[in-house]
Amino acid sequence: MKSVNVAIVGATGAVGVQMLETLEKRNFPIDNLYLMASSRSAGKTIMFKGKEYIIECLSETSFKDKNIDIALFSAGASSSKEFAKYAVESGAVVIDNSSAFRNDDDVPLIVPEVNAHAIKNHKGIIANPNCSTIQMVVALNPIHKKFGIKRVIVSTYQAASGAGLTAMEECEQQMRQLLDGKTVTVEKFAHQLAFNLIPQIDVFMDNGYTKEEMKMVTETKKIMEDNNIEVSATCIRVPVMRAHSEAINIETQKPITAKEAREEWENSEGIIVVDNPENKEYPMPFFCAGKDEVFIGRIRKDISIENGLAFWCVSDQILKGAALNAIQIAEEIIK
Amino acid sequence: MKSVNVAIVGATGAVGVQMLETLEKRNFPIDNLYLMASSRSAGKTIMFKGKEYIIECLSETSFKDKNIDIALFSAGASSSKEFAKYAVESGAVVIDNSSAFRNDDDVPLIVPEVNAHAIKNHKGIIANPNCSTIQMVVALNPIHKKFGIKRVIVSTYQAASGAGLTAMEECEQQMRQLLDGKTVTVEKFAHQLAFNLIPQIDVFMDNGYTKEEMKMVTETKKIMEDNNIEVSATCIRVPVMRAHSEAINIETQKPITAKEAREEWENSEGIIVVDNPENKEYPMPFFCAGKDEVFIGRIRKDISIENGLAFWCVSDQILKGAALNAIQIAEEIIK
Repeated sequence: MKSVNVAIVGATGAVGVQMLETLEKRNFPIDNLYLMASSRSAGKTIMFKGKEYIIECLSETSFKDKNIDIALFSAGASSSKEFAKYAVESGAVVIDNSSAFRNDDDVPLIVPEVNAHAIKNHKGIIANPNCSTIQMVVALNPIHKKFGIKRVIVSTYQAASGAGLTAMEECEQQMRQLLDGKTVTVEKFAHQLAFNLIPQIDVFMDNGYTKEEMKMVTETKKIMEDNNIEVSATCIRVPVMRAHSEAINIETQKPITAKEAREEWENSEGIIVVDNPENKEYPMPFFCAGKDEVFIGRIRKDISIENGLAFWCVSDQILKGAALNAIQIAEEIIK
Repeated sequence: MKSVNVAIVGATGAVGVQMLETLEKRNFPIDNLYLMASSRSAGKTIMFKGKEYIIECLSETSFKDKNIDIALFSAGASSSKEFAKYAVESGAVVIDNSSAFRNDDDVPLIVPEVNAHAIKNHKGIIANPNCSTIQMVVALNPIHKKFGIKRVIVSTYQAASGAGLTAMEECEQQMRQLLDGKTVTVEKFAHQLAFNLIPQIDVFMDNGYTKEEMKMVTETKKIMEDNNIEVSATCIRVPVMRAHSEAINIETQKPITAKEAREEWENSEGIIVVDNPENKEYPMPFFCAGKDEVFIGRIRKDISIENGLAFWCVSDQILKGAALNAIQIAEEIIK
């Protein structure tokens, strides 16, 4: 792989920090590295591979005359909408972690294990899917290829850090306040999350689903390039720090057994099957946090339908659900 | 209602304690009250309506010559299997909260809002269903009556206290240990529950489902008196203290809208609809704890199927899921 110039926009956020760690861990071939963030974080310094970097304030001219090859955006949809175009104009390929461009027809929405081939269609911007969608399509894809998926019903158990580092800290603070019998502070989430569940992630749409739930519908169809896959999602925030979990029921066109599904997953890239009920072994978010793969367990034939499967899927949503997936896309680009 | 003699077996457990509170709160007409438990708790005293009661050690002769009318059992399946017959022999009607007799053909399995009419078929024992089943069938029943339910997919989010008071305390202790950077103690659950999810409740069956999940299948069919309702469940333990939550997708025979479902539920006994997305109002376990009703929200047409509905259902599993339901059965008996 050739060495390239890389910019990270939103370098101090949960995903930005993880991108830096992942770039270092995977020894991504970086020539020059530029770190950018909002004015709030500009001027701060961050260490990368033993070298100190000063965070630049993101502006229209941030990308000019720097020959940036790849700009990893993770500073929210409004920042992406405002500034991605300047990165593209400067000649960079933008890999955008926000929802800003995911549904645009000329923006590929990529999970490398599923649709790396679509990267080449980009016109300057490639979108990184929503975290809960990424881990699900990694799990669905090998099954879809062999058995044909007609319908997916998914209920999520999403970690606090999906709402950012400060949200995760708030959940921890709430726990402490509750255990100490103090009044609970609620700022980052709509409601108290400690010892509670919040059945709302993102805003509500007209059809009664939340935007997060509809992302799982539209993004799954786009990434898997099949508009006939029907999806219904219920997205729930749970008091877990890191790693999203999903209970998934699928209906397939062809008959499927738990054993067949397991074999497909065991031979698929980016997936680790943890499914030994007799030893009480199955994926759990506390123990999947900080790991790269999508973990699958509780694999069983769905007894409520002729051709169906039920399973449980856990993955670190800051890694495979965001930072790692973006960098895997970057790796595909410089191949 | 006539006054009756009541025994509570397992009076010191999570459900037993709640039964006493509920009997008092509902002013259940008690003549004589007998509290029983294992030898571990025998001799302890419990206050009820300002009077002190000594807990008797449960034995073969506990029920003899006391003219007990109703014996509320909640001391686990093995206690029920061993001692319920002595209560029946003494002339009492046993209302059993364990799984011991739920699948027996001559034992009615009762949720009063759904199948109170079946109480009369009892031969001395009436079974109280599993907690996660009770709240689900309360929600399903009015929809089934009007629209006909073909298939149910449910993912649960079950509170720590479902495994007993000491399990709840362990989850709290684990939270404190994690926040203080200490080693986590794991005794009551198979794994750490604090900041984690455990995708196993009860033991595994041959078909890959857990016993808890299969209870939701078999008990739903029995209570709703319809073997054609297909159910697939995924039961997950979450770090919530009290009140179970369920994400439910149903397929109906007749077309159904969210508005129609809402109207049915608003006119149903024991159900409170909390469903105002615009004000971020929906049921949440922390705030449903200690309440009697089954709370329903996030009602929406399932976009993945022609006749389908998705919703979110929360209820205090120690109340409606156990103690309250048992006492409602007792109330039906003495009507």
